[in-house]
Amino acid sequence: MMQSLRAPAMAGAFACVVAGWAPVAHAEKRVFNMTIEDTMITLVGKQKFHTFAFDGQVPGPLIHVKEGDDLTINVENDTTLPHTIHWHGLLQTGTWKMDGVPDITQKAIQPGDTFTYHFKAEPAGTYWYHCHVNTNEHVAERGMWGPLIIDPKDPLPIEKKVTKDFLLMFSSWDSAYWNKPGYGGVPGDVNNYFTINGKAFPDTQPIRVKKGDLVRVRVFGAGDEMHELHLHGHVFQIFAKDGHPLPAMINADTLLFGPGERYDILFKADNPGIWMVHDHIDMHTVNGTKPMGGAMTTVEYDEVNKDQPFYIWAHKKFVPNFYYEDSMKKGYGIFTNPDFKGVPIQ
Amino acid sequence: MMQSLRAPAMAGAFACVVAGWAPVAHAEKRVFNMTIEDTMITLVGKQKFHTFAFDGQVPGPLIHVKEGDDLTINVENDTTLPHTIHWHGLLQTGTWKMDGVPDITQKAIQPGDTFTYHFKAEPAGTYWYHCHVNTNEHVAERGMWGPLIIDPKDPLPIEKKVTKDFLLMFSSWDSAYWNKPGYGGVPGDVNNYFTINGKAFPDTQPIRVKKGDLVRVRVFGAGDEMHELHLHGHVFQIFAKDGHPLPAMINADTLLFGPGERYDILFKADNPGIWMVHDHIDMHTVNGTKPMGGAMTTVEYDEVNKDQPFYIWAHKKFVPNFYYEDSMKKGYGIFTNPDFKGVPIQ
Amino acid sequence: MMQSLRAPAMAGAFACVVAGWAPVAHAEKRVFNMTIEDTMITLVGKQKFHTFAFDGQVPGPLIHVKEGDDLTINVENDTTLPHTIHWHGLLQTGTWKMDGVPDITQKAIQPGDTFTYHFKAEPAGTYWYHCHVNTNEHVAERGMWGPLIIDPKDPLPIEKKVTKDFLLMFSSWDSAYWNKPGYGGVPGDVNNYFTINGKAFPDTQPIRVKKGDLVRVRVFGAGDEMHELHLHGHVFQIFAKDGHPLPAMINADTLLFGPGERYDILFKADNPGIWMVHDHIDMHTVNGTKPMGGAMTTVEYDEVNKDQPFYIWAHKKFVPNFYYEDSMKKGYGIFTNPDFKGVPIQ
Repeated sequence: MMQSLRAPAMAGAFACVVAGWAPVAHAEKRVFNMTIEDTMITLVGKQKFHTFAFDGQVPGPLIHVKEGDDLTINVENDTTLPHTIHWHGLLQTGTWKMDGVPDITQKAIQPGDTFTYHFKAEPAGTYWYHCHVNTNEHVAERGMWGPLIIDPKDPLPIEKKVTKDFLLMFSSWDSAYWNKPGYGGVPGDVNNYFTINGKAFPDTQPIRVKKGDLVRVRVFGAGDEMHELHLHGHVFQIFAKDGHPLPAMINADTLLFGPGERYDILFKADNPGIWMVHDHIDMHTVNGTKPMGGAMTTVEYDEVNKDQPFYIWAHKKFVPNFYYEDSMKKGYGIFTNPDFKGVPIQ
Repeated sequence: MMQSLRAPAMAGAFACVVAGWAPVAHAEKRVFNMTIEDTMITLVGKQKFHTFAFDGQVPGPLIHVKEGDDLTINVENDTTLPHTIHWHGLLQTGTWKMDGVPDITQKAIQPGDTFTYHFKAEPAGTYWYHCHVNTNEHVAERGMWGPLIIDPKDPLPIEKKVTKDFLLMFSSWDSAYWNKPGYGGVPGDVNNYFTINGKAFPDTQPIRVKKGDLVRVRVFGAGDEMHELHLHGHVFQIFAKDGHPLPAMINADTLLFGPGERYDILFKADNPGIWMVHDHIDMHTVNGTKPMGGAMTTVEYDEVNKDQPFYIWAHKKFVPNFYYEDSMKKGYGIFTNPDFKGVPIQ
Repeated sequence: MMQSLRAPAMAGAFACVVAGWAPVAHAEKRVFNMTIEDTMITLVGKQKFHTFAFDGQVPGPLIHVKEGDDLTINVENDTTLPHTIHWHGLLQTGTWKMDGVPDITQKAIQPGDTFTYHFKAEPAGTYWYHCHVNTNEHVAERGMWGPLIIDPKDPLPIEKKVTKDFLLMFSSWDSAYWNKPGYGGVPGDVNNYFTINGKAFPDTQPIRVKKGDLVRVRVFGAGDEMHELHLHGHVFQIFAKDGHPLPAMINADTLLFGPGERYDILFKADNPGIWMVHDHIDMHTVNGTKPMGGAMTTVEYDEVNKDQPFYIWAHKKFVPNFYYEDSMKKGYGIFTNPDFKGVPIQ
C-alpha cells in the first residue's frame, strides 16, 4: 500500500513510503484585509444576481501564500446579515477557534462588525475559503467564496514543470432568488444558471495555451451541484484531490466533482487547435432554458488562427486574468480582480 | 499494476501481488432473529416518519461478525407489506437464493410470514443489509437498512492500530410522505430532511475522540442522494471502498459517495478542538427549509472544554453509542440500540 | 508516483514508468456511413420516445476499430434539426476541425446536408460518439449516442484473458417530452424513465455468462444523470476510466459514474446463480411511478436453471446481442443492431 505524497506519515501499513521534507524555518507573516459587501453581479447577458461578495467580487480575491506562512486576515462585514469565513481544508493546528464555523468555533460576525482570523497556511495545495453561515444560501446561491492557494515548500518535480496555472470555480444559481437576499438554497429550488468564475458562456473566457505548455487546471466545486468536467482533444492526468497529490495520477477525459471538492489536473499542450471545455452534465450548459450556455469555455492554442468562419469567439475580446493565471505568477499576496467586480448595493 | 489488498487473486496482469492469507478453519455458527415493524421515528424536532424498521429501529441492529462465520438469520415480517432482506456486497458463494431479491432469487416475504437466510460472512469489510422490495420507497424513504460489519481474519497492520470505530449511515427523506406508507420514492419527489443514523442536526451526536486516537469512520450511502462528507481540521485517508481496501490510501478533506456505496476513512486525532463534520452538499444541511440542520455533527476532543460561550452543543446530553462505537467493541453478535428505537404503529 | 499504463509519457516525476509500445505501421483505412433519422423508439411497455437516432437506432451502431486506424465517417442528417457528431475522448491530433462541436470546430450539419469526419482512431479504449448541438436535449433526452471501441495494438495481459465483453449505455428520459422534438433537457425537468441500451426493465435483457468467464462490462454515462452500478454476488475490479487503465484496479461492488464517463469493470464468473444488476439510485429503478423497472437487469449463469418458480424472467425470450456482445466478437467495422431499431417518423 502506497502513501499519498504529501500525507502526514501514518505508522506502518504501507508498502513504500515517500521521504518527508525537511521543513525550512522562515515562514512569512502576511496580513490581509477583506470586506464582505452586498454586490450585484452579472452572470451572463442581462442576468444579474445579488451576492454577498468578498471585496465586492465573485469569486473573491485570490489568496496566494506559501506553506507555513503565518496569516492574519481581518474581515469586515459590510452586509446586513451575519457571516463568517471558513478556510476549507486548512489544518488549523492549535487554532480551532479560527476555523470559522458559527455556533461551533465562534459567534457569527454581525453586520458592521469585524473579526480577525490568525492561522498557519498548511497543508500545501488547492484550497478555498467561504462563508459558513447558512451555507445553503450564502455559499450555494450568493457567491461567498474565493480561492486560497498554498504553494508547497518542496514541490514535486512535475509541479516545477508547470508553465500555466488556471483556477476554475464552478457554481450554480437559481434566478428566482436573484434579488431576494436572505432566501434561496432550499429543497425544491431549481438552479438554472451555471458558471465558471461567476460567468456563464458565452461570457466566460478562453483558456489560452501554447504548444509545449504543461498546464495545471485547478477546479473547485464552489456551488451546490455535481459537475463533470470534460476537456476535448487531450488526455488529462488527475494529479491531486483536495490539495493532496494522488498516490498515482489517473488518466481521464472527464472528471466528476461535487460541492467542496477540488481537483488539480495536468495536461500537456501538445495538440494545437480550439477545443471545447465544458460540464458534461448537459443541463449545466444552458442559460435559463437557452442551450449552449452555462459552464462552457474553450482551450485556444496560440498557434491557431482564431478567425475561423465557424468560431463563435472569433472576435472575442480576451481578458487575460479571468482564471487568475496572471495573478498566480505575481508571487504571494492577496489579489483582487476587476474582471469579477460587481456593482455595490446600498 | 497493483492489486487491492483483499482482492480475490486474478491471474497475471499485476506488477505486484500481495500474498494471500492462510484461512483458518474454525468459523462460528451464529443465529440471529430480526423482525420488520411499522415504526414511527422522529428525524429531528417534531418531524416524524413512518418507517418499516428492522427490530423497530432505524438504523436496524448492528450485525457484527467474523469473516467466514456461518450465519442464520430468521426474519419475521410484522408489517402490512411484502419485504425481503438483501445482504449488500456479500458474495453468497453457492447460496444465490439467499441474496434477498424479490422475483429474482425468492418470492417476497408476505406480511406475517417468516424467512430464514443462511449464508457465509464473506468478504471482510463494511457491508449493510436492506430490503429489496420497492427499494425506491422502502430503502430510499422508509429506513429499511442497517450495518453489517465483517472483521477480517487477518486484518491489515493499520486496521489493528484503530482505536475508535464509528458507523455513519446517511439518508434522506421527503416529509410529504411521512405518514403515507406505500407511497414515495418517485420522480419529482423533493427530499427535505437529511440524516445521519436517522437523526438530523441538532439532534445528531458528537463524535468523541481523544488525542492520539486512530479513528475509523465508516460511511454508508443508505438513502437515495449523493453526499459529500467534509471533516474540518484534519486530512483523512480514504482507506476502503465497499469494504475493500484501496490499492493506495487517498488523502482528502471531502468524500463523495452515492447510494449503496460505503467508504472507510481513517484519521489521526492529532488536533484537539471542536470540529465541524457535515455533508458539503449545502442543501443537505437544512431541516425542511430551516438552515443549519440535516447531515451535520462535530468531532469533539476529550482534551477540549465544551463549555464555550459560542458552542451550540455546550450542554448537550451525550449518547455514547449513537455511532455504534460501543457496540463495535463488544465482540460478535447482533446489537440493537435503544437510541434508534421508534414507536410501534398498530 | 505511478503512471497509468496507457498514458502518454510525461517527463519525470514518476516512481515507475511502464515501457511504451512499439507502434506498428499498418493502420487500416476504414470508411463508414451513418444517417441521423427521426425515429420513434419504445423504452418499455407502451412508453414511446421521439429520438434523433443514428442509423435509426438507440444506441447508435457500434463502431469497433483498432488503435491507429484511419477513419472516414460520412454523416447524413435526415432530420429537421441541425446536428454534429463529437467523438468523445478521441485525441484528434492535428484534426481539431473534426471534433464535431458546432460554432467551435465546424458549422452544424443542416437538415438534408452531409459532413465527412476523417480522423485517426486513438487512444485505445472505450469511447462513444454523440451529437454536440443542444446536448441538453439531443444527448440528454433524444438518444443521440452510440459506442466506439478502439482495441489497443498491444493489450494488457489481463485484457487478453477476457472471454465476454458487454456494453451498457445508461440514460434517462422525461416522458413529458416524448413527442415534443426540439424541447426538453432544461432545468426543472423530471426524468422518469431510466434505461440500459435504450430499454427499461423488464424489457432489458440478461447478461449471460458461464462459470470461468472473465467478464468485461463497459458502462457509459450516456444521459444526464448520475448512476450507481451495483452487481450482486461478486466483487468486481474497476479496470479503466474513460478508456484508460487505472494505475491499480479497485475492488468494489458499486460504481458511481456521471454523464460522459465510461468505466470498464472486470469480474470473474465464479459464482453460478441469477444475480441482480441495477442502478443503486433507487429512483432510477421505476418506470414512471411504477417500482421495479428502469435500469435493472440480471447476470444469468449458463449452469443455472432459469425455470425457477420465483424468477420473473423464467421464460423470457433471450436476445443475444443486446449488449453488443456478439458484434464485439466479429472483428472490426460498423455494426447496426436490429434490437435497437425504432420506427421511422416522417
